[in-house]
Amino acid sequence: MSTSVTASFDRMSWMDQYLIGRSDIEAANGRIRPYVRRTPVLELGPGAFDLACRVTLKLELMQHTGSFKPRGAFSKLLTSDVPAPGVIAASGGNFGLAVAFAAHILGHRAEIFMPSSSPKVKADRIRSNGADVTIVDGFYSEVVGACRDRAAETGALVMHAFDQPEVVAGQGTVGVELSEQVLDADTVLVAIGGGGLIGGVAAWFQGAVRIVGVEPERCPTLSEAIAAGEPVDVEVGGIAADSLGPAWAGEIAFAVVSEHVERVVLVSDDAIRDAQRRLWNGIRVFAEPGGAAALSALLSAA
Amino acid sequence: MSTSVTASFDRMSWMDQYLIGRSDIEAANGRIRPYVRRTPVLELGPGAFDLACRVTLKLELMQHTGSFKPRGAFSKLLTSDVPAPGVIAASGGNFGLAVAFAAHILGHRAEIFMPSSSPKVKADRIRSNGADVTIVDGFYSEVVGACRDRAAETGALVMHAFDQPEVVAGQGTVGVELSEQVLDADTVLVAIGGGGLIGGVAAWFQGAVRIVGVEPERCPTLSEAIAAGEPVDVEVGGIAADSLGPAWAGEIAFAVVSEHVERVVLVSDDAIRDAQRRLWNGIRVFAEPGGAAALSALLSAA
Repeated sequence: MSTSVTASFDRMSWMDQYLIGRSDIEAANGRIRPYVRRTPVLELGPGAFDLACRVTLKLELMQHTGSFKPRGAFSKLLTSDVPAPGVIAASGGNFGLAVAFAAHILGHRAEIFMPSSSPKVKADRIRSNGADVTIVDGFYSEVVGACRDRAAETGALVMHAFDQPEVVAGQGTVGVELSEQVLDADTVLVAIGGGGLIGGVAAWFQGAVRIVGVEPERCPTLSEAIAAGEPVDVEVGGIAADSLGPAWAGEIAFAVVSEHVERVVLVSDDAIRDAQRRLWNGIRVFAEPGGAAALSALLSAA
Repeated sequence: MSTSVTASFDRMSWMDQYLIGRSDIEAANGRIRPYVRRTPVLELGPGAFDLACRVTLKLELMQHTGSFKPRGAFSKLLTSDVPAPGVIAASGGNFGLAVAFAAHILGHRAEIFMPSSSPKVKADRIRSNGADVTIVDGFYSEVVGACRDRAAETGALVMHAFDQPEVVAGQGTVGVELSEQVLDADTVLVAIGGGGLIGGVAAWFQGAVRIVGVEPERCPTLSEAIAAGEPVDVEVGGIAADSLGPAWAGEIAFAVVSEHVERVVLVSDDAIRDAQRRLWNGIRVFAEPGGAAALSALLSAA
């Protein structure tokens, strides 16, 4: 999956081609606005969750389909010539659901490949949006492989969960809204799976605020990429694997993060569970593990 | 509970004494601001829930303790000389929890009387805020009676869930936030239990927007009050009874509603259940029946 880089000169130009800019995100924002929700933010008062800092949560679980992913899916679909066989994607669940939803709204066929480890409820929701679902036994890389083989057969447009510029630019619209809704933030915490969200958000802020990435200890795709100097295959697991557990970080995310992200911290599954519990008890937010990961970094002082 | 009124002259002055004004709500807003959350609103796009109108939801379930009630509890506590025995309240659960929370924050003792029909989880949450809980077998009127008897023994300050001006003014701060957050609303739907929330919200808007009250068919306290010309005892039941089911409407709410509310509609328990289901499926909001009642009026075209 990762590009082999042999010289630092090549490396620089390789990274440059993957950087996306604010204008890409502004354009995506204009495209997708009629189709996505401007999700609310909740400003927690001083002392909330026993934290010394002021915390504002962006409630992206209230987006269509329950995650930010429709932003990227609409962004990509609205700039693509979609062929008659429609679109196809490999996904742990949330991106597949977003693609199925967006394709349904825009009148395209959709086919989603999922690993057998993904929650059944996500496959059911994808089907209820009119998409075909194929469950693949094995890991994310095998799901991606099966999806590519199928795309070669059908000619469907491949949608990538985190490593297409239009997808990352779409996820970056979370940053556009954040900068309108929270005027005095100094730090933004973003959970990382393949890096689509942090890539888009970091590319939007361009260093204007401190961006900290948060990865589960058992899904350290970007941490490992930073250590290796490029995206590498990583063994993933744990409670957040279905939403934060692709087997590698995206090239785009790696390029943007290398440029604009201060650091990436790791959180334990226990810390994520604790954050889920406190989100429910404190503000009646029922977040999946991936949705609670960023807060867990604050609560566990990671 | 209701005042006997024998002449229309008396009736007018009786109603006037219960009307609260915008200045009361502004004062409450200033008092309680350090202690309550400014809860977010979620603007649903066109066509959301298959509705022709644009809908914005005020997510008051994200308030401390899970309902709007701390607004009224803090408003009352912060204008009261609280005696050493602390405060005491009768409640189906949400107001009791709010009183326990506010008393805990402000350093007062609290004692809450609840009907045995209330969910056990609410009693547990009240205890976890340091309050004493007494469960009373019987209906709300018996709980209120037991609470008054106990207050006479201890000298604790009685907090009323919906019929004290400072409480209603506190609940009206939901209206203050709404008028800042949603600039072009023409109609506000408010669920009714004893009428504290609609009394405060309607007193804030003073006819500037159309206010429609929503009651469960099986908790028609304000509908019956309007029919009778004054608050009357009502038999209550159904799925929303613990949050919307006091046995009568407040005098204050009745006075304000008579002046400022266009109409009160009734919704079935099935419509409330359907709204709960659609809030969860559509925006991942896990609302109790009382929290879904207002939306159910729209969805069921009541």
